[in-house]
Amino acid sequence: MSSLPAKPPIAAARWARIKLFAMDVDGVLTDGTVLVSSDGSESKAFSVLDGLGLTRLRDHGVLLAWISGRASGASTKRAEELRIPHLIQGRHDKAVALKELVATLGVERDDFCYMGDDDIDVGAMLLAGIGISVPTGMPAALAAADYITTLPAGRGAVREVANLILQARGVIPPHTTAPAARP
Amino acid sequence: MSSLPAKPPIAAARWARIKLFAMDVDGVLTDGTVLVSSDGSESKAFSVLDGLGLTRLRDHGVLLAWISGRASGASTKRAEELRIPHLIQGRHDKAVALKELVATLGVERDDFCYMGDDDIDVGAMLLAGIGISVPTGMPAALAAADYITTLPAGRGAVREVANLILQARGVIPPHTTAPAARP
Amino acid sequence: MSSLPAKPPIAAARWARIKLFAMDVDGVLTDGTVLVSSDGSESKAFSVLDGLGLTRLRDHGVLLAWISGRASGASTKRAEELRIPHLIQGRHDKAVALKELVATLGVERDDFCYMGDDDIDVGAMLLAGIGISVPTGMPAALAAADYITTLPAGRGAVREVANLILQARGVIPPHTTAPAARP
Amino acid sequence: MSSLPAKPPIAAARWARIKLFAMDVDGVLTDGTVLVSSDGSESKAFSVLDGLGLTRLRDHGVLLAWISGRASGASTKRAEELRIPHLIQGRHDKAVALKELVATLGVERDDFCYMGDDDIDVGAMLLAGIGISVPTGMPAALAAADYITTLPAGRGAVREVANLILQARGVIPPHTTAPAARP
Repeated sequence: MSSLPAKPPIAAARWARIKLFAMDVDGVLTDGTVLVSSDGSESKAFSVLDGLGLTRLRDHGVLLAWISGRASGASTKRAEELRIPHLIQGRHDKAVALKELVATLGVERDDFCYMGDDDIDVGAMLLAGIGISVPTGMPAALAAADYITTLPAGRGAVREVANLILQARGVIPPHTTAPAARP
Repeated sequence: MSSLPAKPPIAAARWARIKLFAMDVDGVLTDGTVLVSSDGSESKAFSVLDGLGLTRLRDHGVLLAWISGRASGASTKRAEELRIPHLIQGRHDKAVALKELVATLGVERDDFCYMGDDDIDVGAMLLAGIGISVPTGMPAALAAADYITTLPAGRGAVREVANLILQARGVIPPHTTAPAARP
Repeated sequence: MSSLPAKPPIAAARWARIKLFAMDVDGVLTDGTVLVSSDGSESKAFSVLDGLGLTRLRDHGVLLAWISGRASGASTKRAEELRIPHLIQGRHDKAVALKELVATLGVERDDFCYMGDDDIDVGAMLLAGIGISVPTGMPAALAAADYITTLPAGRGAVREVANLILQARGVIPPHTTAPAARP
Repeated sequence: MSSLPAKPPIAAARWARIKLFAMDVDGVLTDGTVLVSSDGSESKAFSVLDGLGLTRLRDHGVLLAWISGRASGASTKRAEELRIPHLIQGRHDKAVALKELVATLGVERDDFCYMGDDDIDVGAMLLAGIGISVPTGMPAALAAADYITTLPAGRGAVREVANLILQARGVIPPHTTAPAARP
C-alpha cells in the first residue's frame, strides 16, 4: 500500500464545533461495492459500528446528511433505519447540493464537515470546515482532505469521525477516540 | 495494523469452568457489516467454523447466549439453525441483560464468559469470569478484555474460544486449540 | 504475495488512441466471486468507482464492451444500469468474439484495449493494442498483459484504466490518474 | 499470519493419477461464510476461477465429488450449474461417506484426492492418495495435509489443484500451474 499523504492534526475545538456531519454513501459508509442481484434487487454492506456512531451523534443533536451520486433502494432502507433526516441521492453536483443544504439549515462553514472518497466529492470537501477522506479515497479526495480516517470505509470510518466529534464535546471518554487500525 | 494490547495468559482451568458462553452478534459472529437489500431483507455472513464450535459446545452441555443491541431477522434465522437457546436482541444495556440471564440460570461469575467488540460490550465483559474481544474490537473492548482472539470476527473467532473451552475439558486434542492466524 | 511481472510503461499517446475498451466481467469488474442463493438468484459485487469511470468514458465517446464466458443475470442488470452497448455473455472463445466485434465496429488494433484475468482472456489480450490484467490475474494473463493495474479487480481496477484513457485525452487532470494502492 | 507447515513436494506423476477429486464445500469452495438472509434464503460466494477448473476436469474425465457437513440450497444450486455428479450433504462422517463413494466408483487410494479445511475433514484427507488443505485450514487439517494451496479458499484454491492435475496430464501448459499469491 502506498503511504497516505500526511495531514496536520485537527484541534479538538474544531471537531467540537461540528453541528452537521454530511457524507457520501458508497465508499464511505460502504466499501464502494454494490451487490447487484439477478432478481433486480441490490444490496450494500453497512457497518454496525458506523450505525452506533451515527445514532449517538443524532442523540446529541448533530445533524446528519447523506449525499450520493447514485440513487439506491439499499441506501434508502439503511437511512430509514438510522433515521437520517437529510438523504440526497442521484446528484453528482454534490458541492451544489451541500451548499443548498447548509443554506437551508443555516449552518456556517466551520460548523459542518463532509466525508467522501472520490473526485466528485472534492468540491463538497473544500466547502466544509473539515473535509474528510477514507484511506482508500481516490487521489483527488486524499489530496483535498483535512483528515484521513484510520479505519476503512464501511468498516468503522464513520464511527471514527463520530467518536472524534463526541470526544471533543466531552460526551465519550478519550479512549474510544483512537481506534486500532484493522486489516 | 496497530499492535494489540498484550494480556496475561488464561489458565486452562479457567476455560474448563465455563458453563455459559455469552456473546455479541455483530462484529463477533460476523465482521460487523449488515447487508441491507432494496427488497427490505437483510443478510449477515456467519462462519461455518464458528457454527461447528457452537454445536460442539451445546453437545457438551455448555449454555449459549447471543446478546445483540440491534434486532435482526438474519440473526434470528442463524440462531434457529444452531439452536441457540438464549437469543436476546434489541438491548443496548447488555450488562443488565447478561446479569438477568446469569441470575435466572444460576451461573456464577467464574462460570461464564462474554465476548464482544464494541464499547457497549464492556460492562458485560467486566461482569464475566473471562471477558473476550476480537482483534478488531473498539479500543474500549480491547482494553477491557482478558483474552483477545487470534482469528478474526466472523471468520473463526468464536470457534477459537469454543476450542479453548473444549480442550480445557479434554474433549478435543490440543492441536485444534491454537489456530493459525489468517489474513 | 508474489511480486508481479514488471512491464515497460505505456505511453500516454497509446492510451489516447483507445476508441473501444473491451473487458471480461468476473475477476475484472468483480473480485471473481458469484454469490449463489438458495432462492435461485445470483448476485455480484460491482464497484461504484468503476461505474463512474465507465460512465465518463461513454460520455466522451469511448465504446464499451463486456465479454464474459458465463451468462449471468446479475451482469445483465449492471450492464443495463451503466448502459454498456456491447454485452456478450456465455462465450469461452473470447478472442473470436472480440475479433467479430472490432470487425463490425471498424476499430483497428491500436484503437482498442482488452482487460481480463484468466487464461481464456489471453487470446483477446494479445489481439488488442493494449492487453490489461488485474494484479490477481492467473499467471498466463499476467504474463500476456502489457499493463497490470494497481487497484484490485472489482475495487477500482477498471476506474484506473478509465482514468488513464481520460487523462491521456486531457479530459481529467493528472492527479486522478495514479490511484493509491489499497489493501 | 503464522507460517504454514512446510510439506515435501508432490511429484507430477501422483497428480496425473487422480481420477476422482473429492472436496469439502464451505471453507474450500467458499471462504467459509454463509450469508443468512432474513427472508429465509442463504447464499454463498463461489469463485469463477474454481468453476472453470472444475469444468475442465470434468471435460477431461476426472470425477468430482462435493462432501459437506451441512446441507445448503446454495451449494445445491452451484453444484447443478457445474454439473457435479456426486453431491453429498449433511454428513459429518466425511471419511465414511468418502469410503462408500470410492468403493462404489471402484477408485483406488492413489487415484483420488480430498480437499478440506477443518478437523472433520482430516479422516477423509488421510484416506486419500493426496490430502489437500487451504492455507486457512484449521491446525488439524494443515497438519494432515500432503499439499497446502497457495491460493485462498473460495478464491482459486480449487482451480490451483485443477491446474496441477491438468498440467500433470499434459492438458494445459506449465505456466498456468503456479498461480501468483493474492492478498
